[in-house]
Amino acid sequence: MQAQNAPEVPAAQNGNHGALISQLALRRVAIDTWRENVAYLHRDCAVYRAEGFQALSKIEVRANGRRILATLNVVDDLSIVGCRELGLSEDAFAQLGVENGHMVAVAQAEPPESMGALFRKISGERLERGDFLAIVRDIADHRYSKIELTAFVVACNRDELDREEVFFLSDAMVATGHRLDWHEPLVVDKHCIGGIPGNRTSMLIVPIVAAHGMLCPKTSSRAITSPAGTADTMEVLATVELPLEQLRDIVRDQRGCLAWGGTAHLSPADDVLISVERPLSIDSPGQMVASILSKKIAAGSTHLVLDIPIGPTAKVRSMPEAQRLRRLFEYVAQRMRLSLDVVITDGRQPIGNGIGPVLEARDVMRVLENDPRAPNDLRQKALRLAGRLIECDPDVRGGDGYAIARDILDSGRALARMQAIITAQGGKDFDHNNPQLGALTFEVSAPDSGVVAGINNLQIARIARLAGAPKVQGAGVDLLCKLGDTVIAGQTLYRVHAGFPTDLEFARQACSKTSGYYIGTADDVPRVFVEF
Amino acid sequence: MQAQNAPEVPAAQNGNHGALISQLALRRVAIDTWRENVAYLHRDCAVYRAEGFQALSKIEVRANGRRILATLNVVDDLSIVGCRELGLSEDAFAQLGVENGHMVAVAQAEPPESMGALFRKISGERLERGDFLAIVRDIADHRYSKIELTAFVVACNRDELDREEVFFLSDAMVATGHRLDWHEPLVVDKHCIGGIPGNRTSMLIVPIVAAHGMLCPKTSSRAITSPAGTADTMEVLATVELPLEQLRDIVRDQRGCLAWGGTAHLSPADDVLISVERPLSIDSPGQMVASILSKKIAAGSTHLVLDIPIGPTAKVRSMPEAQRLRRLFEYVAQRMRLSLDVVITDGRQPIGNGIGPVLEARDVMRVLENDPRAPNDLRQKALRLAGRLIECDPDVRGGDGYAIARDILDSGRALARMQAIITAQGGKDFDHNNPQLGALTFEVSAPDSGVVAGINNLQIARIARLAGAPKVQGAGVDLLCKLGDTVIAGQTLYRVHAGFPTDLEFARQACSKTSGYYIGTADDVPRVFVEF
Repeated sequence: MQAQNAPEVPAAQNGNHGALISQLALRRVAIDTWRENVAYLHRDCAVYRAEGFQALSKIEVRANGRRILATLNVVDDLSIVGCRELGLSEDAFAQLGVENGHMVAVAQAEPPESMGALFRKISGERLERGDFLAIVRDIADHRYSKIELTAFVVACNRDELDREEVFFLSDAMVATGHRLDWHEPLVVDKHCIGGIPGNRTSMLIVPIVAAHGMLCPKTSSRAITSPAGTADTMEVLATVELPLEQLRDIVRDQRGCLAWGGTAHLSPADDVLISVERPLSIDSPGQMVASILSKKIAAGSTHLVLDIPIGPTAKVRSMPEAQRLRRLFEYVAQRMRLSLDVVITDGRQPIGNGIGPVLEARDVMRVLENDPRAPNDLRQKALRLAGRLIECDPDVRGGDGYAIARDILDSGRALARMQAIITAQGGKDFDHNNPQLGALTFEVSAPDSGVVAGINNLQIARIARLAGAPKVQGAGVDLLCKLGDTVIAGQTLYRVHAGFPTDLEFARQACSKTSGYYIGTADDVPRVFVEF
Repeated sequence: MQAQNAPEVPAAQNGNHGALISQLALRRVAIDTWRENVAYLHRDCAVYRAEGFQALSKIEVRANGRRILATLNVVDDLSIVGCRELGLSEDAFAQLGVENGHMVAVAQAEPPESMGALFRKISGERLERGDFLAIVRDIADHRYSKIELTAFVVACNRDELDREEVFFLSDAMVATGHRLDWHEPLVVDKHCIGGIPGNRTSMLIVPIVAAHGMLCPKTSSRAITSPAGTADTMEVLATVELPLEQLRDIVRDQRGCLAWGGTAHLSPADDVLISVERPLSIDSPGQMVASILSKKIAAGSTHLVLDIPIGPTAKVRSMPEAQRLRRLFEYVAQRMRLSLDVVITDGRQPIGNGIGPVLEARDVMRVLENDPRAPNDLRQKALRLAGRLIECDPDVRGGDGYAIARDILDSGRALARMQAIITAQGGKDFDHNNPQLGALTFEVSAPDSGVVAGINNLQIARIARLAGAPKVQGAGVDLLCKLGDTVIAGQTLYRVHAGFPTDLEFARQACSKTSGYYIGTADDVPRVFVEF
């Protein structure tokens, strides 16, 4: 069938074909639908009937040169929305940015242009650079429904993206967002792939390297599937949602910051994708690499130290797997001209003692204050990673970084810098000697005497989340024993804090199924061979 | 790490841990959110604050021993929902089935039990019988969010289910729904895998085999991705949403019916899955087999003739692919003890002339009335498939089916039986000599003289859908030329009918990109080697 010719399509023969857009008065409907834009039309609205809209179809709303897409809900109550009105949910109303009563134009939304590329990915095809750009642009513009987003995420899951596709995806994520420029040749950052509860090294590394004089404008995420992200924990101490201008001032004055990255629109498509990755606990190598590297490039970083923890319940469970992931990170970083130093670390158990925003903030402040109760594993890991970052400084000799970092921490210069950053970010009252923990508690104790031979990162994280972390700042898990510790039967292994009875009960149910602790002998402790 | 011991979890130490459930007055909120249950709580509602709910989290609502799950929207307007009320969207309100003001209990929904199995499927694992049963039960109970449903559908897409898994899935779909029993040894049915516009053979086969005396209680679906399903087309002639009792009476009297299958809850999980398969145009072999066979088994069929059309733009494009699909159908049918006769047919182009509910009803009635304008391809295909079904009758000699079917059609007995079925199903006014077609029209004509060498099923279906079918019954495409016809430049190839200006314009835009017709020479017409 070689013959293909464009058909003749004559002009309109009947009807008014220009009337694709109809005008209605905007009404703010005080319903919070979170990240899903919802539009409300009355069933008797002339536009609804004339256009043949359907509940749950997508419509486009335009006003003042801006446009948003929203899912349609049909209303039968005139007190919610009138026949000549278009209602918008809170978020959608804010996005459109015009006042109540303003005239808006409404039309059926055409399907996103990238649907063809999405369908090809669903059926297993390899996509090209332009395909990823089209998909990511539609995602960043909120043109994808939850169903379409999920389909993209699941279709890209497992090892289905090749390394070139991961580069295309990362590059598209940068291209469709803002990009910061710090006008300095060396902008350093540190990131961990996640999965290890309590691993709050960034809050130590930033003040250390900033005190050394390096530029470290750290933007972090909130918890996705974990009981606390760096932004959640920093929020216990200071404001993390900062306007970009204020962020720039703080970074100029302090050489560092610890802010939430969401306000900077650094990789907006990634923020949208996370809304479906989270409920599915999806974190495939390709998506992880694209998510992390796109955010770092967009934030203006030139040098990145990346922490890949390895352990039986870490995200990465074997050295070959860690090396594969390292090579994927290195390939994409090189294509994107980012200098990358991957460090494979001990991920056999949580880092520090506290799991949850307040508990983790307590641990961080104890390390900074050189408090004898400070968890040594957190201190050592932060010093080693900070040392690697400091060695990016051309004036520092290879191997000297750790000692420089230790001097900065021991001398109190890291604490001073952290306090300055906290003050600049609008510091909150926090006393690490008397942290505001969730008042409802229970303890889990050792069933037998022996040696702590295993701590399940996933189960500890799950219990902390069920207890309310990170939403309830004072909720979480406080670990009183770590790997290799000798315990006697009945000794407390950890304490759970919650703010609400339901949360406490859910956490208790999870603990009674499996505590996440394994008591055995010293020989049962798993060995890992990592840099530190 | 062999040592694993159950931890000791002591009883509550603080707080009131029994208060997991809170009481509120039910309020019907007149918002139509289609198949997604939505609950509305005021931001100042004590339950919302005490339980630490979040917008978009899932909550469980209980009353009178029934329970439903709903997605939470938070409201700031007391006129929509008060502080001591729980609002439910229309569908959710109907599902719960208690009156306005009734006290309801509200609690955080625990994640569906099958989430572990779902996550394993997403990461590519093979699932066992119990896993499928758990997943399908949660889906049928509306415990999955749109995100979770999509993840399941996409993870099962492509050839990722093996034939045993497809059997497990089909079996679970039957086990979680109602199952009809007609108390007869021979209950016949016919089904097509879809993808061929206008292929309305069921509406001819049912009256033919019912007139022969066989029991053929046909339940059909509405259009999923096509411009019309059998239920949509039959709805032009009669009521298709029938209570089960009435359906039984009609089948007893007429030996057949043409009803929508949705009311019978035959495979409720399938109905839910379709809500995400449709927007993604997903129709993988495993899901197709499970969807079709589960519905047939649940409807009480003992013998099924299955039509697999093959062609360059059909769902199945090559004979090896058709044979693979046939073997999968045969394997699962045999495991489920259904007698199956697969027929591979010509799927190179649409069947009949009309595409869209009214246009297709017109074609069907013309065939039944032996009208000279009746499309012969539709007539021939229906007769051959009816013949295969009639040969399931032990009293009919192999090879005699076609002639028996033809006699029934030519003698007017099929028309009489169809009229009786239509009357029993509450017949509507329909005059096939003067069908109520969409008043807005345009025509597409041949750009050159030559032979119609290709008709793209997908593009013709897309144009008919954009024109408004099946939502607008009179919308669609009327084909004036078929494969192999000689045309001259400017001759009309097809006419598009629409009910709304926007629809007409979308259809026109699609036609101007590509008409779906290819004009070439007789040698360009693709050949297929099929049974008929």
